[in-house]
Amino acid sequence: MAIEFTDPGTLSDDEREKGDVFAPEFGANGLIMAVVSEAATNQVLMVAHMNRQALGLTLETGIVHYYSRSRAALWKKGEISGETQKLIEMRTDCDQDVLLLRVEQAGRGAACHTGHKSCFFRKVKVAGDGEISLTNDAGAPLFDPAKVYKR
Amino acid sequence: MAIEFTDPGTLSDDEREKGDVFAPEFGANGLIMAVVSEAATNQVLMVAHMNRQALGLTLETGIVHYYSRSRAALWKKGEISGETQKLIEMRTDCDQDVLLLRVEQAGRGAACHTGHKSCFFRKVKVAGDGEISLTNDAGAPLFDPAKVYKR
Repeated sequence: MAIEFTDPGTLSDDEREKGDVFAPEFGANGLIMAVVSEAATNQVLMVAHMNRQALGLTLETGIVHYYSRSRAALWKKGEISGETQKLIEMRTDCDQDVLLLRVEQAGRGAACHTGHKSCFFRKVKVAGDGEISLTNDAGAPLFDPAKVYKR
Repeated sequence: MAIEFTDPGTLSDDEREKGDVFAPEFGANGLIMAVVSEAATNQVLMVAHMNRQALGLTLETGIVHYYSRSRAALWKKGEISGETQKLIEMRTDCDQDVLLLRVEQAGRGAACHTGHKSCFFRKVKVAGDGEISLTNDAGAPLFDPAKVYKR
């Protein structure tokens, strides 16, 4: 089956923001943004995009699929790296233009292509003199990207 | 002081993805996306946008500012509703085009304009027959938007 999604244009603002009809807003580029968190801890792991096909496949299979903007192609997360994601819960925000995916991260537990658990492995630090820098407070990556992604 | 941000175009991919220079990527519209979570629990509260001014003010004051796309104006979160956000920690993702703000939500504890704690108060439910719907599993809103936002 191919899942069909309700056109948000057919809903009133109230229905869209408070109702029970799922009407995801795909942007002009046909994509909707997905924020991804680890179901067990709520830690934010990454942000990615989905087209209708990726969202449909994710809901049908329970395995997370995205749309890769750099490759302009459907992207089954972890297909190359083994770092697949099992969908535990999907949520939508008030105006239905962002999805929240709560997942179990498989493989080595690294959602990020740098080999880190989370893409957000660096903290923004503001020094006393106003100087801003980044600090990696997440330690070493869980895999070596050079070995995993052979291009 | 007005905070100046490094132009990401001046960094190599490696510097940008793994280095310690903060070089946020503002899109063609001059905005960067911010995912906002509750610092104490990591629960994702909302997603919003920042321009350079909003990001600078947030880092300078520790009080979260966004850019409202609907009003095309700087938006001090909670200015009308009282639902301000105190920045506990800011993080950036690997390609520095998304920020993660870990905050303490003040006021009634409602980040969403619908009065809910989180904008993601609805879960996507797939029934046995493939029918998709939304369920509000977050209970009643913490404030009545009709009373708080008088337009």
